[in-house]
Amino acid sequence: MKAEIITIGDEILIGQIVDTNSAWIAEQFNLNGIEIYQITSVHDDHQHILEAMKKAEEKVDLVILTGGLGPTKDDITKNTLCEYFNTKLVHHEATFQHIREIFSRRNFDFNKLNRDQALVPESCTVLFNKTGTAPGMWFEKNNTVFVSVPGVPFEMKYLVEYEILPRIVKQGRTKAIFHRTVLTQGIPESMLALQIESWEDALPEHIKLAYLPNPMSVRLRLSATGTDKTVLKQEVEAQIQQLQQLIPEHIFGYDNETMAEVVGRLLKMKGKTLAVAESCTGGYISHLLTSVPGSSEYYKGGVTAYSNEVKKQLLGVNETSLAEFGAVSEQVAKEMALGVKQALQTDFAVSTTGIAGPDGGTDEKPVGTVWIAVAGENKVFATQYGFGNNRERNIIRSGQTALQLLRQIILKGL
Amino acid sequence: MKAEIITIGDEILIGQIVDTNSAWIAEQFNLNGIEIYQITSVHDDHQHILEAMKKAEEKVDLVILTGGLGPTKDDITKNTLCEYFNTKLVHHEATFQHIREIFSRRNFDFNKLNRDQALVPESCTVLFNKTGTAPGMWFEKNNTVFVSVPGVPFEMKYLVEYEILPRIVKQGRTKAIFHRTVLTQGIPESMLALQIESWEDALPEHIKLAYLPNPMSVRLRLSATGTDKTVLKQEVEAQIQQLQQLIPEHIFGYDNETMAEVVGRLLKMKGKTLAVAESCTGGYISHLLTSVPGSSEYYKGGVTAYSNEVKKQLLGVNETSLAEFGAVSEQVAKEMALGVKQALQTDFAVSTTGIAGPDGGTDEKPVGTVWIAVAGENKVFATQYGFGNNRERNIIRSGQTALQLLRQIILKGL
Repeated sequence: MKAEIITIGDEILIGQIVDTNSAWIAEQFNLNGIEIYQITSVHDDHQHILEAMKKAEEKVDLVILTGGLGPTKDDITKNTLCEYFNTKLVHHEATFQHIREIFSRRNFDFNKLNRDQALVPESCTVLFNKTGTAPGMWFEKNNTVFVSVPGVPFEMKYLVEYEILPRIVKQGRTKAIFHRTVLTQGIPESMLALQIESWEDALPEHIKLAYLPNPMSVRLRLSATGTDKTVLKQEVEAQIQQLQQLIPEHIFGYDNETMAEVVGRLLKMKGKTLAVAESCTGGYISHLLTSVPGSSEYYKGGVTAYSNEVKKQLLGVNETSLAEFGAVSEQVAKEMALGVKQALQTDFAVSTTGIAGPDGGTDEKPVGTVWIAVAGENKVFATQYGFGNNRERNIIRSGQTALQLLRQIILKGL
Repeated sequence: MKAEIITIGDEILIGQIVDTNSAWIAEQFNLNGIEIYQITSVHDDHQHILEAMKKAEEKVDLVILTGGLGPTKDDITKNTLCEYFNTKLVHHEATFQHIREIFSRRNFDFNKLNRDQALVPESCTVLFNKTGTAPGMWFEKNNTVFVSVPGVPFEMKYLVEYEILPRIVKQGRTKAIFHRTVLTQGIPESMLALQIESWEDALPEHIKLAYLPNPMSVRLRLSATGTDKTVLKQEVEAQIQQLQQLIPEHIFGYDNETMAEVVGRLLKMKGKTLAVAESCTGGYISHLLTSVPGSSEYYKGGVTAYSNEVKKQLLGVNETSLAEFGAVSEQVAKEMALGVKQALQTDFAVSTTGIAGPDGGTDEKPVGTVWIAVAGENKVFATQYGFGNNRERNIIRSGQTALQLLRQIILKGL
């Protein structure tokens, strides 16, 4: 089954928001064997929406429209749907009662805009939205299904997961797809491609390989298409086993696993604990670690030591080290890691100290200079990096690199 | 001038990555008076790319293609461009030398894939990419400009900023646009719409209003189109002054300002300092604060107290408070805020303690239960929230709410 996602709303087209909805829908649809043919973002404009729907209908079996619904912008989308499906707006009592109930629960006044939200095209199947006021709408035309959902991410997600996908799967028009992504690091894309060339060339026709590079790693995605998901899974797993023989030291995880999850898994397996001391990363590493459910099992906590006083007071960094080497130095990075390891009584600790920018750089230590230290069970290691002059990127690269170093130290049992 | 963004690559269509490139390009183009007509994401597929280009050419003056370039996937996009512009691939010596130099600097082996990256369609103007190996390509057909750039965000950004926009602006085909976004909180969309209805109805034809709700706030975007940007700016500013009279207590900032920036600005203005003590937010608040350049002026640091020992040891939380009320309680939240304020010797402090989930909930304190405390200059306040059962959302909402509360306490001088 092929689908197109049409997002409606000027906010995406002026770059005010990033279209995370489409990525989420695309992932969910793919997991259910629905291939996304195209994603199209259009204006809140009657004619533009109509054209996009017409073009999509020529190509796909399922069109999902997100956005363009809500108390202040209902008009255009709903009227366009009415025109496209040759129907008219009618009052929908269940939706009306639901909106009234939401408003009375929140002690908000119910107004005419909210009353209009209970108007729906007569020919649609209303998809009850228990998470908000704007309902989803389901249409069928010839052999194509059209669904319209609000753009608020958690309302859209609720409707896709509980109202739309179950109906689609029930229709039995989906095809089996299996994806697996291998996460690699420490090798550039072109070198990786040569190293696995013979394996790649020998892949069967129905298993496709894609290289997905990002600043910290290259991901290899295998996508198998066929009729039986169990068979596809076995085939892909077998290919990955071969790949593991070729580049064992470069593979660190699979699929959407983050480095924080990989590190967490290792710590949990070994029954070890972790603390962090952050200066330039300012809480980012701690945030990455605690974004993982269950992280309290191995992560005890951390200190963001943004000022030198905090470095001295909470982490026991020496006054003389700060004076002699400066806050951004091997000595201070090591003392921070050892200090937080001792203060929080953990098995491992990691620390960062650097110049994130845009200010604070010197000739000797330009913006982007970062020292990262890892205190292992017996030893402490520190490495210097130069990450360039973008503050956001410096924070991300420092944090990700710190987790990579930590992983290596844990694996080596140092 | 109207533009369309075409992104090429399966990774967006299977939901593996979020298309942040399009949002960035859309924003930059808008700031330069180029309206985005549509964003279209297509597969790495010859026919599909051709069709998207043809459709775009009918509607817009400028087409920017991102992605589909790089050592392992050059073939399809470059050959498609050759077909579309009726030309052939030729060796480009400057690009070849540049790639070779990058590889020798990094001590990587130069291979045939890299050599092929120096092939470009003969009829294009090569846009030198000093940030990577794949060059940008500029074509003109009839009155439409086509540019193709790699999908790696910082390479794409470099080419748009330094190679593409200057050329477009030079052509003198852009129109003046001015956007300003007003950030509001504490009022739902429909109520806001009624409260500002008469102001909205009186807006001149060339100034458009859009409501952009997200879980923490409703943003109001004013977009003015005309010929003179200075005049448009004055008109929009005048409208915003009227709006301020209508909803003074709900406006907290403008444009892309974050709550962390707003709080930082207030602290800097008053010459005050801040510390944070985080349990359920796990470093997220600290990360938000330190993402702001210059935050070291007012932010001294924080403690992520994930385990109870850390709460006691570093923050001085009482053993008896933990035993009697539990870690997620008003008492502990207040002691955490006061503890970090004292330990780091700051004027203000904020703390969070809650059950982020998915585990750890009880009947009395379900997942999503969060206590947030703010220690002001003289008093300490704490509030309880119920944020629901999604871990990621709980962390985000707790963090954002903590900053909102902090802002109010600072403003009130408490």
